[in-house]
Amino acid sequence: MTKSEIQVKGEQARRAATVLATATTSQKNGALAKMAAALRMRCNEIIAANKLDMDNGRRDGLKESLFDRLLLTAERIEGIAAAVEQIIALPDPVGTCISGQIRPNGLQVNKIRVPLGVVGIIYEARPNVTVDAAALCLKSGNAVILRGGKSAFHSNMKLVEVLSAAVAEAGLPAQSIQLVENTDRAVAADMMKANGLIDVLIPRGGAGLIQSVVQNATIPVIETGVGNCHVYIDASAEEKMAHNIAVNAKTQRPGVCNAMETLLVHENHAVKLLPAILQAMVDKGVEIRGCEKTCAVFPAAKQAVESDWGEEFLSLILAVKVVPSLDAAIEHIRTYTSLHTEAIVTQNVTAAERFLNEIDAAAVYVNASTRFTDGFEFGFGAEIGISTQKLHARGPMGLEALTSSKFIVRGNGQIRG
Amino acid sequence: MTKSEIQVKGEQARRAATVLATATTSQKNGALAKMAAALRMRCNEIIAANKLDMDNGRRDGLKESLFDRLLLTAERIEGIAAAVEQIIALPDPVGTCISGQIRPNGLQVNKIRVPLGVVGIIYEARPNVTVDAAALCLKSGNAVILRGGKSAFHSNMKLVEVLSAAVAEAGLPAQSIQLVENTDRAVAADMMKANGLIDVLIPRGGAGLIQSVVQNATIPVIETGVGNCHVYIDASAEEKMAHNIAVNAKTQRPGVCNAMETLLVHENHAVKLLPAILQAMVDKGVEIRGCEKTCAVFPAAKQAVESDWGEEFLSLILAVKVVPSLDAAIEHIRTYTSLHTEAIVTQNVTAAERFLNEIDAAAVYVNASTRFTDGFEFGFGAEIGISTQKLHARGPMGLEALTSSKFIVRGNGQIRG
Repeated sequence: MTKSEIQVKGEQARRAATVLATATTSQKNGALAKMAAALRMRCNEIIAANKLDMDNGRRDGLKESLFDRLLLTAERIEGIAAAVEQIIALPDPVGTCISGQIRPNGLQVNKIRVPLGVVGIIYEARPNVTVDAAALCLKSGNAVILRGGKSAFHSNMKLVEVLSAAVAEAGLPAQSIQLVENTDRAVAADMMKANGLIDVLIPRGGAGLIQSVVQNATIPVIETGVGNCHVYIDASAEEKMAHNIAVNAKTQRPGVCNAMETLLVHENHAVKLLPAILQAMVDKGVEIRGCEKTCAVFPAAKQAVESDWGEEFLSLILAVKVVPSLDAAIEHIRTYTSLHTEAIVTQNVTAAERFLNEIDAAAVYVNASTRFTDGFEFGFGAEIGISTQKLHARGPMGLEALTSSKFIVRGNGQIRG
Repeated sequence: MTKSEIQVKGEQARRAATVLATATTSQKNGALAKMAAALRMRCNEIIAANKLDMDNGRRDGLKESLFDRLLLTAERIEGIAAAVEQIIALPDPVGTCISGQIRPNGLQVNKIRVPLGVVGIIYEARPNVTVDAAALCLKSGNAVILRGGKSAFHSNMKLVEVLSAAVAEAGLPAQSIQLVENTDRAVAADMMKANGLIDVLIPRGGAGLIQSVVQNATIPVIETGVGNCHVYIDASAEEKMAHNIAVNAKTQRPGVCNAMETLLVHENHAVKLLPAILQAMVDKGVEIRGCEKTCAVFPAAKQAVESDWGEEFLSLILAVKVVPSLDAAIEHIRTYTSLHTEAIVTQNVTAAERFLNEIDAAAVYVNASTRFTDGFEFGFGAEIGISTQKLHARGPMGLEALTSSKFIVRGNGQIRG
């Protein structure tokens, strides 16, 4: 029987992972340097492959918003190469001793950080994810199997060809970085069920992709990304601060997961502060979908419907609700949260602490914009995604999230009595 | 539409989890003390319920080996209550600051340990798991939904009645501990797909149960327990140490996951040490299934077949193979490991370090019996299971494995530029 593409690449990845697991930091950094150099050197080849995707996209009527994500230019490739070089500077998590002790019977039990093994990434249009993910997995000692979107097929093929050749040139296995070449859904489904071959699957993309992976995978998954983020302006909030945070959280970059989608405002602020904030939003092109009280104080608002409270708009649309109390704000957030980022603006310490303790999300904020939830802003230097599940990693995931642990036990003949 | 049992109990558990997440250590310890007291006080009720299960088991032809696992006596209940009290003494992981920093913009970003939320446990005959799991989940601030085997139904119903009443008496939600009352497989399947209601599912039991959960769950799972553990006796091994470790790893308690299933021996030891070890095994009732060379030096051995190398016997059966080198031993283990526990006996430091680094398993040993891989022996004080996956937790899981983390971000008006 012929092996499937996933079976073949999974077995190759397993073998590569065995080598990567014991590669030194210098070897891995050497490979990253060669990867960055090759991206620059073979820039024209990459742009030519990308042009095929762009042309096909035009022919196939690809959505206009996706062209910008797909496009690779010399400048963008330089940025991607520079990002690979930044990963060289990050500390290597592999080999770190997490904890260690000598047991009463003399056994020395150390818990050390090891690579996960083989990481699968399923993602959509952006070809820069191909390079990011490959570099982060390599630095953390993992082999990676990438499955990108059909629309970026030629770009991804070329990028992986360039990267894996660079890795081989550095003396590490070329198959440390592989791309799934068959972009049929059935092959993605195979990948989700590759127990024993892939240790963890990370989907990066829209809610539909992520739900499909969560529903169909039998291998461990890290659920990422969907952010229905709230900002609650408490009765005691400082008005100017509240105004600035709300406008920043909504408008600074509305298309990302840590942007605000619903603004909750204590009723004490309904008459004065709220209309001023909403006017500033409208001036920046935001469409307001408000509760009844919001519409009463700000007639330009549309009436919100139930589905608005649960939606991740990822655009210049904002749901707004006036609430009578902190309790009501907490209750609303508990009902609609996607467990990503939730913020309170307040001067009251009890309100702040209650919000931090009682709201269950990957990141909870007092008096700052939700937009800070990402790997760079949290000081990880890079990010493979933002986990919204509670197992393994929660919130922005840096290199450590791509590792597991192993107990190393040293004895001198101990047996159990 | 009527809600399913899992929907109803899941929502109740979510509400209970919200209260438990902010309960103090004193409150949780108070509840554990009341649980232990109630188990002792209501011992006769529990024994009466257990008698129903034992009678039904006899009527239904339950396998003889399962009766001992099912039986509850006054002495065993005392042991179970004492185990609950031991959990009081363990440090509470919730609220621990895992890491903290102040970012250049003044944002204070702390990562703190929080409960997972709602934990689901699917397990088989032993009713002591009901109490163990309930106590560990409560101490770590999690609500638990337990789904035990049909054969222990009355015992589990009574135990959960006793425990949840004790929790309520201590002022925490009675629904912190719930049992699935419908033991149909369809309800277990519901539990595996309870996204949004159950944060993690931990199966405890045989390989069939665990595979069923891994294959069918859409919620995050921690795979536990199957142990096809190897001991490799290297050329340089000290003979007496090797003999003692091998016999201990196989015979001290053969029915558990950290017992040895395959012995690998360097060919230098084939003529003298190996027959002596195998004779000692046979004297303890072990059946030997050997490779050709093993059968040649120890004629009492049966010829091993391919499936013997991959099997977790959990009984007095041992597969034995003579290998020409450390490389061959590593290759054999890589092929057949269940990623649980693997050990080398050697006096050679290079061989020891190569084995520790190159073998990928939850626990790797030099010169000690595999039987030490458990939560008590590793100093965790208790254990909810042994993870053989790489995500979230690997190896014996104590209270920390029942927690997640949360980023707490404190600012004074920071917005993103």
